[in-house]
Amino acid sequence: MDEFSVIKKYFASAAQNAGEEIILGIGDDCALISAEPGYCVAVSTDTFAEGTHFFKGLDPRAVGHKALAAALSDLPAMGAEPLCFTLALTLPEADESFLAGFSAGLFKLARQEGIPLVGGDTTGGPLSVTVTVLGKVRKGEEIRRDGARAGDVICVSGPLGGAAYGVSLRYGAETAADAAAAELAYGLLDFPRPRTDLTGCLRRYGVSAAIDVSDGFLGDLGHILESSAKSAEIALGRLPVSAALGGLPEDKRLDYALNGGDDYELCFTLAEEDLARWQSDASAGKTPAVYPVGRVTDGTGSRVAFIRDGAIVVPEFLRKSFNHFA
Amino acid sequence: MDEFSVIKKYFASAAQNAGEEIILGIGDDCALISAEPGYCVAVSTDTFAEGTHFFKGLDPRAVGHKALAAALSDLPAMGAEPLCFTLALTLPEADESFLAGFSAGLFKLARQEGIPLVGGDTTGGPLSVTVTVLGKVRKGEEIRRDGARAGDVICVSGPLGGAAYGVSLRYGAETAADAAAAELAYGLLDFPRPRTDLTGCLRRYGVSAAIDVSDGFLGDLGHILESSAKSAEIALGRLPVSAALGGLPEDKRLDYALNGGDDYELCFTLAEEDLARWQSDASAGKTPAVYPVGRVTDGTGSRVAFIRDGAIVVPEFLRKSFNHFA
Repeated sequence: MDEFSVIKKYFASAAQNAGEEIILGIGDDCALISAEPGYCVAVSTDTFAEGTHFFKGLDPRAVGHKALAAALSDLPAMGAEPLCFTLALTLPEADESFLAGFSAGLFKLARQEGIPLVGGDTTGGPLSVTVTVLGKVRKGEEIRRDGARAGDVICVSGPLGGAAYGVSLRYGAETAADAAAAELAYGLLDFPRPRTDLTGCLRRYGVSAAIDVSDGFLGDLGHILESSAKSAEIALGRLPVSAALGGLPEDKRLDYALNGGDDYELCFTLAEEDLARWQSDASAGKTPAVYPVGRVTDGTGSRVAFIRDGAIVVPEFLRKSFNHFA
Repeated sequence: MDEFSVIKKYFASAAQNAGEEIILGIGDDCALISAEPGYCVAVSTDTFAEGTHFFKGLDPRAVGHKALAAALSDLPAMGAEPLCFTLALTLPEADESFLAGFSAGLFKLARQEGIPLVGGDTTGGPLSVTVTVLGKVRKGEEIRRDGARAGDVICVSGPLGGAAYGVSLRYGAETAADAAAAELAYGLLDFPRPRTDLTGCLRRYGVSAAIDVSDGFLGDLGHILESSAKSAEIALGRLPVSAALGGLPEDKRLDYALNGGDDYELCFTLAEEDLARWQSDASAGKTPAVYPVGRVTDGTGSRVAFIRDGAIVVPEFLRKSFNHFA
């Protein structure tokens, strides 16, 4: 099976559900996108490589799902709505069972998100997937990393640490308390949910800065603090920790929640009164939940103080945020 | 040296020359691009991988140059002008000598083309580069593959076959006639020139269909013919063949010119009177040269007839166009 047959059989046919903003989809030298007047096009690129981001032998559906999910996750973090994506797929051989699973996982999520594949490249080589997502955001309404203000509340969009625990289980570095915890952790690791459902909320409640939690909460919060020239206090008791970690001692749970990557929840900052509006709407079932975990403080050093029982503590378990080549 | 240091040292600092259409460049979850009203955004993704697209040990400057050149080449083929690009770089280790050469080659071309890097991803793994280029084209003025009309003249923008000859020399499958021929072939292979200088010409002379010659002239012309549901006649004596091939017998020269990939010249179709205007302007030194090589004919089979000395011939040397996994 040659390159053009692979594209035709597994990708071109499923890629036809283009919306009205996609002037031209897959099959020419370029795709053409027309954002509405007054909008910017947002673009982000992420690579998902065997041996670095996932273990050899991972369910091909998970490879397809997660490669797209990880890239998509950058759009809500910018306040942008998804438009379309391109796919650069490198694989050792045209393995039809891999391709069938991969494209099924990829396009299931693409259909859920209403985002068509508009182009790409297929190459022979070690398994690796690079996805470039394009989105749109009204000019001036984008949410940057550098907008956090002293006094803003730091929030996350959901429980943390479950995906990293899944990595430890798969490595054999941990043993699951029970089958349900393992299943939950593997699900969070392999099929993360990009929080595109929150784009409207982030704008409605005046979020001042946002990022997606891909490298780990502390590392990603650090990017907001550095860009905004601020510091932070985190209340350890308020961190939402994944239910998958239920059987672990508290320090270990916090370690996973603070430092574990791959959760793809959002971390963001907003004024206290805006948080109150969001929480009130969430209590009424109008919006997804929001989890306040700390506060932005003055000080340009991007320092994070941890609070436990009202006092500043220095947890023993703190380790570096995940970082390639480190 | 960790991932963030690599990005900061080799990529972020050189990426600041953003034009007014780049609202936000490198350093946030997404880059933001604002095309002028009435324009579409064109997007194309290409992968350039060690062992598949280039030999291990290739000059890192060439890796950087060619990865961008190959992706950029799709923009003029669509009638689009370059806006910006993203880079997904996978490399086995943070080798500073590689990174210095790679980024020098990449940004030298980026500066020449006035196209800023706006985002990307850096990953540990086997060496591979995926570039996504974004461009702009006025709505309705894009040049698609499916517009070729029976009677149109088929043209190429420059000599063919030199890059493929460079591959054979590097493999040891050929021996160069002299050092100058080898130097020319390696230059065409390693530092191809994307024909962004032709975007204005293609539109001015009413080009009806276009593609860049990346997989080989016959294969790429085949995409135009298939999309346009046409066939073609090619006059073998009119094919411009790279000067690097000067020492070879004619059939071998034609084989390289018809089937060799990686030239990144453009192949396009236009009406005879439009070609006459272009040729007249080219003779007056107002535009780059254009090389008519054949004609679009009726017939949906995408068949190519070869003409030599006024008669249809079937050259012995025809082999398949380059195709991954084939």
